[in-house]
Amino acid sequence: MEELTKFAPRPNGAGEMFQLLRDGRPRTRSDLAAATGQARSTIAARIDALMAAGLVVPAGEASSTGGRPPATFAFNPDAKVVLAVDLGATHAHLAVTDLASRVLVETDQLLPIAEGPDVVLSWVKTAGDKLLASAERELSDLAGVGVGLPGPVEHSTGRPINPPIMPAWDDVDVPGILRSHFKAPVLVDNDVNIMALGEHRAAWQDVNDLFFLKVATGIGAGIIADGALRRGAQGAAGDVGHIAVPGAAAVQCRCGNVGCLEAVASGQAIAATLAEQGLEARSSADVVTLVRSGELAASTAVRQAGRDIGAVLAACVSMLNPSIVAIGGIVAEAGEHLIAGIREVVYQRSLPLATQHLRIVTSQTRGEAGVLGASAMAVDHVLSPEAIDAFVA
Amino acid sequence: MEELTKFAPRPNGAGEMFQLLRDGRPRTRSDLAAATGQARSTIAARIDALMAAGLVVPAGEASSTGGRPPATFAFNPDAKVVLAVDLGATHAHLAVTDLASRVLVETDQLLPIAEGPDVVLSWVKTAGDKLLASAERELSDLAGVGVGLPGPVEHSTGRPINPPIMPAWDDVDVPGILRSHFKAPVLVDNDVNIMALGEHRAAWQDVNDLFFLKVATGIGAGIIADGALRRGAQGAAGDVGHIAVPGAAAVQCRCGNVGCLEAVASGQAIAATLAEQGLEARSSADVVTLVRSGELAASTAVRQAGRDIGAVLAACVSMLNPSIVAIGGIVAEAGEHLIAGIREVVYQRSLPLATQHLRIVTSQTRGEAGVLGASAMAVDHVLSPEAIDAFVA
Ligand SMILES: [Zn+2]
Ligand SMILES: [Zn+2]
Repeated sequence: MEELTKFAPRPNGAGEMFQLLRDGRPRTRSDLAAATGQARSTIAARIDALMAAGLVVPAGEASSTGGRPPATFAFNPDAKVVLAVDLGATHAHLAVTDLASRVLVETDQLLPIAEGPDVVLSWVKTAGDKLLASAERELSDLAGVGVGLPGPVEHSTGRPINPPIMPAWDDVDVPGILRSHFKAPVLVDNDVNIMALGEHRAAWQDVNDLFFLKVATGIGAGIIADGALRRGAQGAAGDVGHIAVPGAAAVQCRCGNVGCLEAVASGQAIAATLAEQGLEARSSADVVTLVRSGELAASTAVRQAGRDIGAVLAACVSMLNPSIVAIGGIVAEAGEHLIAGIREVVYQRSLPLATQHLRIVTSQTRGEAGVLGASAMAVDHVLSPEAIDAFVA
Repeated sequence: MEELTKFAPRPNGAGEMFQLLRDGRPRTRSDLAAATGQARSTIAARIDALMAAGLVVPAGEASSTGGRPPATFAFNPDAKVVLAVDLGATHAHLAVTDLASRVLVETDQLLPIAEGPDVVLSWVKTAGDKLLASAERELSDLAGVGVGLPGPVEHSTGRPINPPIMPAWDDVDVPGILRSHFKAPVLVDNDVNIMALGEHRAAWQDVNDLFFLKVATGIGAGIIADGALRRGAQGAAGDVGHIAVPGAAAVQCRCGNVGCLEAVASGQAIAATLAEQGLEARSSADVVTLVRSGELAASTAVRQAGRDIGAVLAACVSMLNPSIVAIGGIVAEAGEHLIAGIREVVYQRSLPLATQHLRIVTSQTRGEAGVLGASAMAVDHVLSPEAIDAFVA
């Protein structure tokens, strides 16, 4: 029977109707009856159940051409909150958001992921508790937790798998550890996937095909195709850092190959190039500082990195035909040099059909992409038709 | 109201329930009630409507532990037929299939696409009529037509857009022309997309992420991600023929760039290489013939083309993390040389996480991929929940 229910998860319940309301627009019972093809009495009962659960609230009266105007109802994003956790290589960024992924309170802390799961996850618990308190919400208000990690994550279990920069985290049960503290479902994915999700939901909701590229210490991508994140068979889709750059020098990469995108064009690689030229550059942040201070060698190096990235992005664009390529990560903060180099090569190396409606832009969500995406991932789980059906049952 | 119905296309109708039955397994009314969460009386009425329409037939009795054994019902793929049309650069391949995409009758004809839409589509009409007759079916039995074309197709309209090898076809209303003759819905896509669909449905139905690469006169790909074909924003996804091959020679390509995959490793490019060596090779077919006749220079050239293709495929694998890469097209018929070269480079150039469960195989559907996919595309449309709801209403 399990096989059957997989294909038809009681598509008729309150949960399915509730999805219509998630856009925030108030609707009458008649609107909902027309949209779902259900009887008005069924709709009325579901509205009552969702109101009792606090997920739907009265939203005033619709305009009427005569007679008593009908009541409208709307999604109540304050019903619950979620905790959004964006763990990077060196920083931890936490936010409490409502069910529309609006940030209520947030905190950002220097916290190297290499400190290991005990230290980092303990801090997440403590900081999460504090953040909930400062949002004046209880643990019982917490509907879910979304977590981004800077390495590959097995999507089905939420466990990191052989993460290169966080070896102590391999196969750690991150969802289990956080769930036992927060008493709520915990969803985990890699940081670039949640950044892509955050950028898509916050800035490009009407776009179906978006490619998000993070350029920081490493380089990675998140793929939105036909409106949803695509993770591939093992959750490794978007792992573009070790693609060979056509025409690049045979720079040795930590993966064992030569000429990888990360070895040629990451923030770390740019810093190394500048250090060779005698400049003070040890990290991506140093590169950004040098560009902003007007150092010509730095902007030249960033532009060249943009060209090398463009050579790989041209292949991504030919393959996936997105309408938006959004460039995020700290190196994207170095002004227009990176994106200018990227555009130069992508438009030169791609077929007209793939680029005629393509826009290559700097991430609109900047440093917030991670927490916005972690929140969206948790909210999608918590407000799924199945979860709502169970919640109002 | 249109916006609302988009999100909830009456998910409750007979059409939704019917999707469960498309796997061909017989089910009782109780099975279907349990799977959909609907009342048995509702299910019984829907079964009756689907039986009246001929889409569902009685399938005997289920085994029972006592009492009268319950009746079972199953999908009837003979209810209607579809016409599957695979138009290549030089050949036209037509089939009449049932609603499970099983080929009933088929025909293959030398017919250059460059003859233009008048000649080619007239032939499709005549040959389609004959094929229907030889399958002993009427025009009224034809539920839909699926067409693959060897060039870019705008998915929403089914019209070719600036197709390089079929200039006379630009913006031709292929669906309209065939619909007025066959009196049934006509779906059109590019040939590689329908080959990917055919390969997926016929050979790898349990695989969610499949990458199909066609190596023939040109090179193109079709992407299955999370179980469905992904076409990108303008329907140009999978257009990998003009991606620059890392490390390849700067061979001039017809697109104006140098070092494109097609310029280096297509059947046409291999033939040109062999012709330079004094061998009789003008086409992909000649290349296959030479390899099969044991010509060492030909198998060496095919293996090198495999390596060049592997260099681009490694990027595709890193980006999409498929679990199956299927190699089709006529050059794949040249034995194991092509795939050996491909495997060599993909496994060398990809990260372990992306390749640990990856299989690179020759297309299992061979020359049938196109008609199987054209059939599947038409059947999916004809048997969609919305179409069934309208059909049994
Ligand atoms: Zn590498
Ligand atoms: Zn080209």
